[in-house]
Amino acid sequence: MSELRRDPITGRWNIINTDEPASPDAFEVDHQAPSSGGRCPFCPGNEAITPPEIYAVRPPASSPNGAGWQLRVVANKFPALQIEGGLARRGIGVFDLCNGVGAHEVIIETPDHHRQMADLTLEEIGTVIRAFKARSLDLRGDRRLKYTLIFKNTGLSAGASLEHTHSQLIALPIVPKRVQEELKGAERYFEFRDRCPFCDMLSQELQEDERLIADNRSFVAFCPFVSSFPFEMWILPKEHRADFAQIGPEEIVDFARLLKEMLARMRSVLINPPYNFIIHTSPIGPLEREEYHWHVELIPKLTKVAGFEWGTGFYINPTPPELAAKLLREAVLPV
Amino acid sequence: MSELRRDPITGRWNIINTDEPASPDAFEVDHQAPSSGGRCPFCPGNEAITPPEIYAVRPPASSPNGAGWQLRVVANKFPALQIEGGLARRGIGVFDLCNGVGAHEVIIETPDHHRQMADLTLEEIGTVIRAFKARSLDLRGDRRLKYTLIFKNTGLSAGASLEHTHSQLIALPIVPKRVQEELKGAERYFEFRDRCPFCDMLSQELQEDERLIADNRSFVAFCPFVSSFPFEMWILPKEHRADFAQIGPEEIVDFARLLKEMLARMRSVLINPPYNFIIHTSPIGPLEREEYHWHVELIPKLTKVAGFEWGTGFYINPTPPELAAKLLREAVLPV
Repeated sequence: MSELRRDPITGRWNIINTDEPASPDAFEVDHQAPSSGGRCPFCPGNEAITPPEIYAVRPPASSPNGAGWQLRVVANKFPALQIEGGLARRGIGVFDLCNGVGAHEVIIETPDHHRQMADLTLEEIGTVIRAFKARSLDLRGDRRLKYTLIFKNTGLSAGASLEHTHSQLIALPIVPKRVQEELKGAERYFEFRDRCPFCDMLSQELQEDERLIADNRSFVAFCPFVSSFPFEMWILPKEHRADFAQIGPEEIVDFARLLKEMLARMRSVLINPPYNFIIHTSPIGPLEREEYHWHVELIPKLTKVAGFEWGTGFYINPTPPELAAKLLREAVLPV
Repeated sequence: MSELRRDPITGRWNIINTDEPASPDAFEVDHQAPSSGGRCPFCPGNEAITPPEIYAVRPPASSPNGAGWQLRVVANKFPALQIEGGLARRGIGVFDLCNGVGAHEVIIETPDHHRQMADLTLEEIGTVIRAFKARSLDLRGDRRLKYTLIFKNTGLSAGASLEHTHSQLIALPIVPKRVQEELKGAERYFEFRDRCPFCDMLSQELQEDERLIADNRSFVAFCPFVSSFPFEMWILPKEHRADFAQIGPEEIVDFARLLKEMLARMRSVLINPPYNFIIHTSPIGPLEREEYHWHVELIPKLTKVAGFEWGTGFYINPTPPELAAKLLREAVLPV
């Protein structure tokens, strides 16, 4: 019989197929990389096609929006939200709305069109993480913004529209529903037990060893007990930290190492799947919540979300996290 | 600038691109029908491949699991949940789980492999709705079950694994998260205004006319103000009704008529897209809630859910419902 498992934080139950678990070859994956359709706006020499750079890692002598950079952050050319203007909260009958105020930035992780994030060196991934941190901190000056979401879509079916490796940052004037649910769940748990549920979860995972993939000095990676998706992976700081942007220089090195390792393990077991990568962190400013514990969710895109998931908010996961973790742990990595 | 719109029931905000709205040709759609891989288990003559029928519409003289039927309901051969056994709620450290107890049935809507639901006659769609009702009512005898979800996945990218037109029923031992959110939202609204938010919404849509697609004696169809997806359509009973399974014989005729019309309009505007269809209804037994208002959500599968949606629970909808409703209203229908 399958198992129904309850997320201790949000209260979501998922159905896990523990009886006839699906192994990696059970999934049809589009390995096709999204086409760039001619001239890639993220390649060196094409800097003029993108909006001007907001942040860059480049030699001191080079000029902004010129060649020679290692990393660039630019505004999204087709932004979901725009930084200009006021929120203008208003109602129409039973409905509430406001203007789409916010920031939508693109982090171009490397000038090299042909390397994915997993191919970057440790130092290069560190540079990407430092850019995430710098942009997060900078946007805190704008008090209209309540939450900063950093994420990455790789591959067509995971929603990427450009092949050249990049991440995105969206800063929102509203704390997202999913984050509010996690905050409320963490708070409820804290009231009941005076402990952080993420801390409890990671200490249980380190002890039980069953869903653990790897850890280092400051971070741990495992497949969560209530995985919504097959081969879902979480990376958490071992010490309780609410806010991703407070990550220290040594932690950045440890985070980069574990992230690179997880990308390599995923690529080895699932043969380079499309995936999404999301940093879950606390809201900012007066809404910051110490009960929260920031973490990364790394989700290979293997299943289709359909009527059941839209109707219930629950997920049917054909691969138990125990099997996924075992395969990811035993993956053969490039030397 | 885009708009942020707030769902008055669940509190979810979606980002609607009101500036540069995407029209139907902006979406890449897989029109490929899922292959049946040889012998279709839902075709006449292959009744022995499916689990035995639970419910059927067939001539009085014909024998169960033989030929001659118009509609069959069978257990899903690869069920997400199984009806045997106890729930056995238990904990492992911080985690809670229980056995995957529930029902998972398949409604084979017609013996004809080559007709989609939109091709069925009004009378045939009525027969499907009567089967939904009969199965819902029958499962209420099992007090372990708290919620019945009826849904339909059509097309590969909407999660269908078989081409032959069918719907599914999953009865759950837990009220789904999404339903609980809607119930709580409806209750909060009711406390505040002593009215049902769905009733208010539908009277506003009928008045404003902007997002209305069509209506008849007992039902109305519109694109919701806070559509999560482009061309999302809702069908609601005009009279406040919490429970789908209480639908009367005349209402079944009206519901069948509007559903068939919506399927035809969607097919005309979007050229036969993959889609999901979900009946949202109240939980059952002691958990039934009079504040709820049952309805259908009909969602063509046009966009990809990616990092932003997984991270926030919010959706970015490139097509404003006002434009979608206009195109659906003006669609040319087959005579």
